[in-house]
Amino acid sequence: MFEVQHRDKQTRARAGLIRTAHGDIPTPVFMPVGTSGSVKGILHRDLIEDINAKIILGNTYHLYLRPGTEVMRASGGLHKFMSWDRSILTDSGGYQVFSLSSNRKLNDEGAVFRSHIDGTKHVFTPENTIDIQRVLGSDIMMVFDECAPFPCDYRYAKKSVALTHHWLDRAVKRFRETEPVWGTQQFLFPIVQGGIFDDLRKLSAEKAAGAGMAGNAIGGLSVGEPADEMYRIVEIVNEILPEDRPRYLMGVGSPVNILESIERGVDMFDCVMPTRNGRNGMLFTSGGIINIKNRKWTDDFTPIDADGPSVVSRKYSKAYLRHLVLSGEILGAQISSIHNLAFYLSLMEKAREKIREGNFGKWKASVIKKLSLRL
Amino acid sequence: MFEVQHRDKQTRARAGLIRTAHGDIPTPVFMPVGTSGSVKGILHRDLIEDINAKIILGNTYHLYLRPGTEVMRASGGLHKFMSWDRSILTDSGGYQVFSLSSNRKLNDEGAVFRSHIDGTKHVFTPENTIDIQRVLGSDIMMVFDECAPFPCDYRYAKKSVALTHHWLDRAVKRFRETEPVWGTQQFLFPIVQGGIFDDLRKLSAEKAAGAGMAGNAIGGLSVGEPADEMYRIVEIVNEILPEDRPRYLMGVGSPVNILESIERGVDMFDCVMPTRNGRNGMLFTSGGIINIKNRKWTDDFTPIDADGPSVVSRKYSKAYLRHLVLSGEILGAQISSIHNLAFYLSLMEKAREKIREGNFGKWKASVIKKLSLRL
Repeated sequence: MFEVQHRDKQTRARAGLIRTAHGDIPTPVFMPVGTSGSVKGILHRDLIEDINAKIILGNTYHLYLRPGTEVMRASGGLHKFMSWDRSILTDSGGYQVFSLSSNRKLNDEGAVFRSHIDGTKHVFTPENTIDIQRVLGSDIMMVFDECAPFPCDYRYAKKSVALTHHWLDRAVKRFRETEPVWGTQQFLFPIVQGGIFDDLRKLSAEKAAGAGMAGNAIGGLSVGEPADEMYRIVEIVNEILPEDRPRYLMGVGSPVNILESIERGVDMFDCVMPTRNGRNGMLFTSGGIINIKNRKWTDDFTPIDADGPSVVSRKYSKAYLRHLVLSGEILGAQISSIHNLAFYLSLMEKAREKIREGNFGKWKASVIKKLSLRL
Repeated sequence: MFEVQHRDKQTRARAGLIRTAHGDIPTPVFMPVGTSGSVKGILHRDLIEDINAKIILGNTYHLYLRPGTEVMRASGGLHKFMSWDRSILTDSGGYQVFSLSSNRKLNDEGAVFRSHIDGTKHVFTPENTIDIQRVLGSDIMMVFDECAPFPCDYRYAKKSVALTHHWLDRAVKRFRETEPVWGTQQFLFPIVQGGIFDDLRKLSAEKAAGAGMAGNAIGGLSVGEPADEMYRIVEIVNEILPEDRPRYLMGVGSPVNILESIERGVDMFDCVMPTRNGRNGMLFTSGGIINIKNRKWTDDFTPIDADGPSVVSRKYSKAYLRHLVLSGEILGAQISSIHNLAFYLSLMEKAREKIREGNFGKWKASVIKKLSLRL
């Protein structure tokens, strides 16, 4: 499934290729988030032509609740349902059960929760979240885990990790006992948890590595802890996760977070930041971060990002985008989201190029200063 | 500016060509509404490539309030501000002053009103609405008028028409005394008012015709009166408005309303229906009207409109679009808006073709039954 093609000489960064039934994905890769079967505000052709996304995310929690597994089954799976023939990774819903639903109760068996949409009661288990993802037909499935809150004391974190590991065993068992519903190969990634506790993270990384799955994920980070804590945990975990499998840092993050994590051996990322913050007028550019609502852009008729990778970044002016965002025009959200995602994905492409050239570390050091500048 | 190219033999329908500094516009034409400098939810390239819009609308009231005339002037006009190099027609703001603003007071001089955005006080006059539209640089400008409410008694309507005519004289004077700010030719259209009163409409049509402008508009219809009343007024007015100038029926309407009005000699239309109703899940198709929220589409995986003129109509399924609209996903609004506008514009193209072939009336009679069917 995965092949490391280049290794940076000075850092742990690597460039590789993930192969799924729906195409090849060069890594490092950023995966646009398409929670409910749609990357918010972006038509598929723009995802393909302007952003060049090779893989997007879907979410088990959302799609299970709406439109529901039966519609998903009748449609022939998520790819067909949403007319997307490139790769899809689906999150297990673990994170959403804890962040969105109400009245959730955990037990050894799984999680009982109420829908954030209509209050109906549901149960997620390690087994049924595999079954649902089989119906979704995602290329990469995630195990059901508990994403512990931050801050969280050691005792809670330890218990939570134990539960996540118990669930991992059951998920892997179900995965091995079942076949893809739609005939295309599906992979399953375990998720390393353990908060910011080094020993729990090591334990969890060993547990994940021991499952022998095609790839591994690191969850429970970027939930409020300082960035340095996150980087430290990533380093510890990546010492243990196998070199020859892709490593996916879930829900991360800013362009700087991502480059720092690539340097520490991470291959895959996802985050709502480029779309969610984009809808609110925050733009990531090669020169730094723009808050387009700022008065200073009122009569700045230069392009959003003259060197930007997307057509929309070069076509539309800052003043126009500011006007759209302030006026609450949908088009403002569309342009910002396309721009930000195209920026994220082109940054991955550049990172990959620098890894190939063997000077990732130097390049990273030079760009992160600019990337976090507030313009 | 305008050339009638074909006349239907049985009806008053005609096909023509409007020439502006920003391109040629075949008529009958439907103009997508881009109130605040954006056709809601649609990127320019989709307007051009998928919808094939040759002209869109902007609104003086909205653009004057936000981003404001000074930003418009600094940007080089609305075309440059929004990066749109095809034609633009701007409404005068008359309708919006009466429908959106608060505390409006009419006097002979003009209208004093408070912004719906921040409550600030403003004055529109026949002269300053020309001045603002000069700065916007629209290809077709509209005179400032009073759009009387419906129902409205004869006495009010008569007074209102007199005021609108008084304003027309002043607008035409200002138009003649001023030059385009950006060097591209601008036309001014008078607006026929008079409610549903035949004599007032005749009087107003004669007044408009007498102004000798390049085109004429019919306002104050589709404001709540029965469709038959509207058609009757259109017939009366079009008897008087010159044959060799385009006739623009403002704010109309449904596909059936439009075909009926084309039959009565109207050339230009605009309406928020395809975008606003689209955002709410109402789709116009060649087979009839779809309420995509209806449960019956839950597992209908056939295309939105297999024969639809837009790529999105053929790519996405009804079940997927239903899911997006019910989930409040922006993409639902985008797909519905593109589909509906593409449908409207292709209907205009077909109408034009049928006029050219000389069998518009027969074709119209056969399609309107289907067009208003509820699927």
